[in-house]
Amino acid sequence: MKAAISSLISSRNFNLHQSSFSRSIFHQPSLLLPSRFPVSSTGGGGGANLTTLRHKFRFHSIKSSASMASSFNPEQARSPPALPLPIPPVTKFKIALCQLAVTADKQRNIEHARKAIEEAVEKGAQLVVLPEIWNCPYSPDCLPLYAEDIEAGGDASPSTAMLSEVSRRLKVTIVGGSIVERSGDKIYNSSCVFGTDGKLKAKHRKIHLFDIDIPGKITFIESKTIAAGQTPTVVDTEVGRIGIGICYDIRFPELAMMYAARGAHLICYPGAFNMTTGPLHWELLQRSRAVDNQLYVATCSPARNADASYVAWGHSTLVGPFGEVLATTEHDEAIVISEIDYSFIELRRTNLPLLKQRRGDLYQLVDAQRLKSE
Amino acid sequence: MKAAISSLISSRNFNLHQSSFSRSIFHQPSLLLPSRFPVSSTGGGGGANLTTLRHKFRFHSIKSSASMASSFNPEQARSPPALPLPIPPVTKFKIALCQLAVTADKQRNIEHARKAIEEAVEKGAQLVVLPEIWNCPYSPDCLPLYAEDIEAGGDASPSTAMLSEVSRRLKVTIVGGSIVERSGDKIYNSSCVFGTDGKLKAKHRKIHLFDIDIPGKITFIESKTIAAGQTPTVVDTEVGRIGIGICYDIRFPELAMMYAARGAHLICYPGAFNMTTGPLHWELLQRSRAVDNQLYVATCSPARNADASYVAWGHSTLVGPFGEVLATTEHDEAIVISEIDYSFIELRRTNLPLLKQRRGDLYQLVDAQRLKSE
Repeated sequence: MKAAISSLISSRNFNLHQSSFSRSIFHQPSLLLPSRFPVSSTGGGGGANLTTLRHKFRFHSIKSSASMASSFNPEQARSPPALPLPIPPVTKFKIALCQLAVTADKQRNIEHARKAIEEAVEKGAQLVVLPEIWNCPYSPDCLPLYAEDIEAGGDASPSTAMLSEVSRRLKVTIVGGSIVERSGDKIYNSSCVFGTDGKLKAKHRKIHLFDIDIPGKITFIESKTIAAGQTPTVVDTEVGRIGIGICYDIRFPELAMMYAARGAHLICYPGAFNMTTGPLHWELLQRSRAVDNQLYVATCSPARNADASYVAWGHSTLVGPFGEVLATTEHDEAIVISEIDYSFIELRRTNLPLLKQRRGDLYQLVDAQRLKSE
Repeated sequence: MKAAISSLISSRNFNLHQSSFSRSIFHQPSLLLPSRFPVSSTGGGGGANLTTLRHKFRFHSIKSSASMASSFNPEQARSPPALPLPIPPVTKFKIALCQLAVTADKQRNIEHARKAIEEAVEKGAQLVVLPEIWNCPYSPDCLPLYAEDIEAGGDASPSTAMLSEVSRRLKVTIVGGSIVERSGDKIYNSSCVFGTDGKLKAKHRKIHLFDIDIPGKITFIESKTIAAGQTPTVVDTEVGRIGIGICYDIRFPELAMMYAARGAHLICYPGAFNMTTGPLHWELLQRSRAVDNQLYVATCSPARNADASYVAWGHSTLVGPFGEVLATTEHDEAIVISEIDYSFIELRRTNLPLLKQRRGDLYQLVDAQRLKSE
């Protein structure tokens, strides 16, 4: 009876980016992120089996019930409990989404990407995101032929050598889209994150492979060619804590929910949706992951080539923590530049305190690898 | 290397409802839904505490690992494992969303709703959905004054007495939006589901209360007036297995994910989003819950009254299992009638086999009450 309706608006033109900045709920990442926590792993890692986590689960449940915030145990809605949002090294910065045209000429693709990154940095970008499979055509026949040994580096991986060189030279963080990685007798669809020192900070191997069958529309069985990654990837960079997913990974809300619980400010999904799933789901999924987890989501697609065997949807997009599209483009080659302001994460979480309203007494999302690492 | 791109399309006008019907993956609900499983609870139930579920968790993990479908243990992505989709009593039927104008005159609201249900049934609807709080203004001052004792029934609850009478007389299933329920010294925001026999089949008390604060836009603290429900609600009806959420419940993806794992064909969310959150998130959230869980989602709002203290967004909508808007309306009073065809659930789950692609080795959503009931 004491609830107050303080104000109502009738405008659809609600300015989503109108707030004063406060860092009050940010926390020191160094206090929150023990080194054993897999935020910057460059190896494949091993998938934890939940059957091995029984003791951990029990331990954690007891611990979190002792510090629960309400009778609904919102902290228990994540196991382990969600980490507080870390203080990012920068709060406001420019991101560039390089929607590149991809050809069959790998060397040309590498040079083309290098130029795009240089142009993005000239325009002020501190974070550059490349598309999924930006150095070769996305076709099952091509993928193995263009594979590179990322761990060996140097001549064995000219694509990542370029990313390392340009990130160091221009002092820019790069989420390097994805390329095909050869490792032993397997190939992976892998995204490499380079820091401003040119070092490989993280490598995400696509976890959920693109096996779909919409008869008469599109059938693609990526798992016949590519092996699946075993590790979610969250990495601390000079532009904040970033979770990485590749394309089909975006269809699984659990991954984004885990990334949010690991303290990510931003999730980057290099992706190449197609002419069927693109118009249906590309923007919907991005906005959904952003609004449910109250963080930024960035996607980067290859530009469309109507003559290619796989025709990409394009529409690289940046979405804010209210699910609002902040910047996007059509299907042609483009560099989308937009500002990220992490203070809006805090603002939206204050507006809609979903984290405190979850019903940990009714449901719980378990992050198996975090649980295992504790 | 053997993957095949069988076909690509470039049309945006992809007809989403073009398929032959097959019931091959439907299963007998009687085999899948033990009576102890809370699908038709009419009581408040008790929230399970995950700290008490340690043994259950262990037990379950072992059991499901023995029956895993792949090395990624997709079955373990839900605990307990997801139930197969039950065979619905009907596959195709019409649903009506009655977007009603609500006044301060309760008796008028009840008669008005009765007439709307009658009109919907005349137009062929086998399932009628009403709005959130359809018998009184949605304002903190009004809510307690209009509360009814649903369990006592009869004169103590004229609103549900009407729903019972009309559902029995017209042999229609009704998801009765929500009304304010008085139970002891508490009041709840409760949705009652009536079967074609006029019996109360389920009662869902809003689990997640609408406490938001967007300064200068909208501030509303529902929890100062209303108590929260303790039980997710899934109910077997003559038109399939239906999960119930009320308004703010839709913001929590975990609830919809649990309902899908409990075998729901459809989730109904009576809801009254407002002029801030409506344009931002109403359709986004519905489409997101539908596409992620590959089931139908129906929402029903009150019609807009610009003079009310709380101005509802309207836009009652039916969304299909590919996240596609099948029917919607603007903000005026309306009865939205559309066809539901559950065979599309199967089709979409075949197109995009998300259930088999989940990484149960990396994450797991625990349904505390189902786990406890096993």
